[in-house]
Amino acid sequence: MSSQLVFAPLGGIGEIGMNLSIYGLGDERRRNWLIVDVGVSFAAEEHLPGVDLVLPDIRYLVEERRNIAGIVLTHAHEDHFGALIDLWPQIKAPVYATPFTAALLEAKRASEPGASEIPVKVVELGSRFHIGAFDVELVSVAHSIPESNALIIRTHAGNVLHTGDWKIDPTPILGPPTDEKKLRALGEEGCLALIGDSTNAVREGRSPSEAEVAKTIAQLIKSAPRRVAVTTFASNVARLRAVADAAKAAGREVVVVGRAMERITQVARETGYFDGVQDFRSQEAYGYLPPEKVVALCTGSQGEPRAALARIAEDQHPEVTLSRGDRVIFSARTIPGNEKAVGRVLNGLIEQGIEVITDRTHLVHVSGHPRRAELEDMIGWVKPKILIPAHGEALHLSEHASLARKLGVPTVMTCRNGDLVELAPTPGVIDEVPAGRLYKDGVILVDAQARTVADRKRLGFAGAISVALALTEKGELAADPEIDLIGIPERDRKGELIADAAYDAVIETFESLPRARRRDPDSVAEAVRRGVRGVVAERWGKKPMCHVHVLAV
Amino acid sequence: MSSQLVFAPLGGIGEIGMNLSIYGLGDERRRNWLIVDVGVSFAAEEHLPGVDLVLPDIRYLVEERRNIAGIVLTHAHEDHFGALIDLWPQIKAPVYATPFTAALLEAKRASEPGASEIPVKVVELGSRFHIGAFDVELVSVAHSIPESNALIIRTHAGNVLHTGDWKIDPTPILGPPTDEKKLRALGEEGCLALIGDSTNAVREGRSPSEAEVAKTIAQLIKSAPRRVAVTTFASNVARLRAVADAAKAAGREVVVVGRAMERITQVARETGYFDGVQDFRSQEAYGYLPPEKVVALCTGSQGEPRAALARIAEDQHPEVTLSRGDRVIFSARTIPGNEKAVGRVLNGLIEQGIEVITDRTHLVHVSGHPRRAELEDMIGWVKPKILIPAHGEALHLSEHASLARKLGVPTVMTCRNGDLVELAPTPGVIDEVPAGRLYKDGVILVDAQARTVADRKRLGFAGAISVALALTEKGELAADPEIDLIGIPERDRKGELIADAAYDAVIETFESLPRARRRDPDSVAEAVRRGVRGVVAERWGKKPMCHVHVLAV
Repeated sequence: MSSQLVFAPLGGIGEIGMNLSIYGLGDERRRNWLIVDVGVSFAAEEHLPGVDLVLPDIRYLVEERRNIAGIVLTHAHEDHFGALIDLWPQIKAPVYATPFTAALLEAKRASEPGASEIPVKVVELGSRFHIGAFDVELVSVAHSIPESNALIIRTHAGNVLHTGDWKIDPTPILGPPTDEKKLRALGEEGCLALIGDSTNAVREGRSPSEAEVAKTIAQLIKSAPRRVAVTTFASNVARLRAVADAAKAAGREVVVVGRAMERITQVARETGYFDGVQDFRSQEAYGYLPPEKVVALCTGSQGEPRAALARIAEDQHPEVTLSRGDRVIFSARTIPGNEKAVGRVLNGLIEQGIEVITDRTHLVHVSGHPRRAELEDMIGWVKPKILIPAHGEALHLSEHASLARKLGVPTVMTCRNGDLVELAPTPGVIDEVPAGRLYKDGVILVDAQARTVADRKRLGFAGAISVALALTEKGELAADPEIDLIGIPERDRKGELIADAAYDAVIETFESLPRARRRDPDSVAEAVRRGVRGVVAERWGKKPMCHVHVLAV
Repeated sequence: MSSQLVFAPLGGIGEIGMNLSIYGLGDERRRNWLIVDVGVSFAAEEHLPGVDLVLPDIRYLVEERRNIAGIVLTHAHEDHFGALIDLWPQIKAPVYATPFTAALLEAKRASEPGASEIPVKVVELGSRFHIGAFDVELVSVAHSIPESNALIIRTHAGNVLHTGDWKIDPTPILGPPTDEKKLRALGEEGCLALIGDSTNAVREGRSPSEAEVAKTIAQLIKSAPRRVAVTTFASNVARLRAVADAAKAAGREVVVVGRAMERITQVARETGYFDGVQDFRSQEAYGYLPPEKVVALCTGSQGEPRAALARIAEDQHPEVTLSRGDRVIFSARTIPGNEKAVGRVLNGLIEQGIEVITDRTHLVHVSGHPRRAELEDMIGWVKPKILIPAHGEALHLSEHASLARKLGVPTVMTCRNGDLVELAPTPGVIDEVPAGRLYKDGVILVDAQARTVADRKRLGFAGAISVALALTEKGELAADPEIDLIGIPERDRKGELIADAAYDAVIETFESLPRARRRDPDSVAEAVRRGVRGVVAERWGKKPMCHVHVLAV
């Protein structure tokens, strides 16, 4: 086998989420592939109506299916493993994951009816194993979920460090801190390329520690006069544990509210991350507990309208309620695009006299990603010959790249999703592979280029009209036409019914057609469509989609 | 006339934008009304598909039309005057505005075909005049547009200070600073109630001055190696002037790009706010100017896809281009809800190697609203007996209220849109008046409660199906049914065409009906609708809207 080593991001470059990277060993004719992470991004942030998730288009991996040695998951965040259940059946390669990630994947799979079994090889934290031609070693890193791993990928063409998501946190509450020793050793051994998390490359200094957040939360729960609700990302088990400990110290019971929170709690108990944590109480118990004896741990930190916190804020939750004098702690950042939804929940709570505490005024949240001083440490430890910024929007990538250049990394490359980058022997972009996006629309994956969602945007913008005509062979109407308008204002500015005007347009357009054309259904349909749209556009200022059925009877 | 003085907000409370307040003198049988501001809010921030603007529902003002003495506009921001052109024909009361506000209103009216003439009484800055039973005095305040005014509304029942939007800025670049002397004098004279801007009530300290922003911009333009583009809110004439001065100092010409920017520039010249400012160059000149000799002043600070900056970033602008090494200054904050759109423009520029400067790292923008120390000053100056927080979301109102309580204001009231608040003789909410929201949908104003936009959201979520059947008197199909699917994925998970399955469902449902029911068009339509929706829902996981036309031939 030739010693060419390549890297291609199929997602995660120039965007937040949808992380999927591939490494290849071989040459143009045949490469052995290693896939790292198979993540989603969230469509709500992009205003794609009716789309829940955005997944990477893996047509290239489907083509190369026979050459894929395996899939490694760095950790169990949705933007790193959330597309696996939907996409795995097209790849069917073995999956490698640490125990917590594997357990969470299985819990998720079990909750999705019809999801395929995925054979997962469970690997230990810090372990080293072979996947095809790749010698992979896990490096524990601190992050906002248990068992986040950087990967050392050793090949005969050189060693790569794929950081996954990480930060430096000497007191992460749960699990080992970032394994500086192993990273320094890689620096000594020699690191050809570092592919690294850029999320916080615009932020100076270092991220505060989870331990500091835990301290703030403990104070806020202790000093609360009545009920406390805390909302956070469910997967942040260290944070959940901090809340549980704070509740215990304040003599309060914990009630878990929301499906994602329940699932994580169970997985955390199974995998030992909740060892020593008190039992939580059921939601039914909530109503019987005195206000000063309870902490509700809720989903909904992004203002999701159907999650626990939004329902509680609107007094729509069957068991959990809050009222004047209670305290809600938002222990999460607001993901861009969710500001309005979070604002709605927050304002709804404040209007009821509920006290709301956010990271604007208190250290109730920290990011799980490295700021600039941490990025400098990492580069100093592993001394890569090549650095490729990953995981971030253009701004983050560009800041990460200039930092690396400033620190003297010999080759700094920025690339785009679908770029095929040669790492060895000669660094540079050598080709392009198909990359793109799929939308999860209901239970179907549709190509982001397909008309489906674009048509729905048009429907959302200007509604729809459908018309039905029955046409005899002689070109006469066999019945009164039918017309239906959806999503169009009822009356125009003069107060006249738009549906009446549209109906008249159908008749008038038809009657104005020469007799010969009236016999041609296509010609009638097109003329009526134009006539109706024109009349509606004139009165409304917008052109709805319009479909005319002509039935030849 | 009785001496009851009332206040009612019809918008602007618990939300950003859509400011409209009314003051009434009299009693329950008859009140004389003064309207302050008639603003819009922006629908893009609320994900209302196809809606451009949200306007206050003024049905109450239409009922009370004969008792309205007049409308005062505090300043020319859209959230304070943007609904006037659409709503004035229903009120037809005289409008009072200062010269710049009046000129901008007229420029806007002239650009909207068919907009009614609005008779405006132009009043001088700092002047005092009667509107019906109200004695109104303008108090100049600093803000992010020329000629922002607080109003002292004197009545025989007491004096009210309606602040409008304001800040304290000793060096506002343009126009007089906030008239502390007049406000202190009002405090001496006696102020019954202060109705005040709460936008920045969560922020400690004082807003920086426009002069400091001007200094930063001057440095950034001077030090730029190549082209510079600056984007800001067009109405911030002081900021435009700062850019013009900075360009002149750096030996650069200014090119104005974008309609709103051109309109403001013209109004600023007409009203004297650009006296001494150099002539700007036309867009056609841009291409001929050397890169180090030009500054483009652009619309699009909120990432609006059709505004100048987005088009330049995508290389879609006919005359203005940017390239590697150029510098773009975002001299504006991102309004919540626009983060993704702004991010897209920003990342697009960075990907092209264009340097982007935002308020994250440089003082290139300041807010026009008072922070807490400024609110404290205002309360200290006018010493109101009553304070009602206005202009803000629940969080801002609640923080403004607690600040006022802390400072010892005797009566602090928070209220909701539509509350009728008695200020004198006995402070308190005494009644409710109709209030609500209208959507500007194309050229039509629709009630926010109407089905129109809700139906479009459903269309956007799950698309639409229309079916047409021709039915004979005997209950037989006179032609093959027609079916049209819009916004629905083409194929299901097995790769089968959903349209085929839906067509089969039409036939099967029809054929499964008992003969007697086949003669009843309504019954056929309903059965087919259910059958088709069921089949599509089963394959897709979502239920589209579905309309079945049955033509009796």
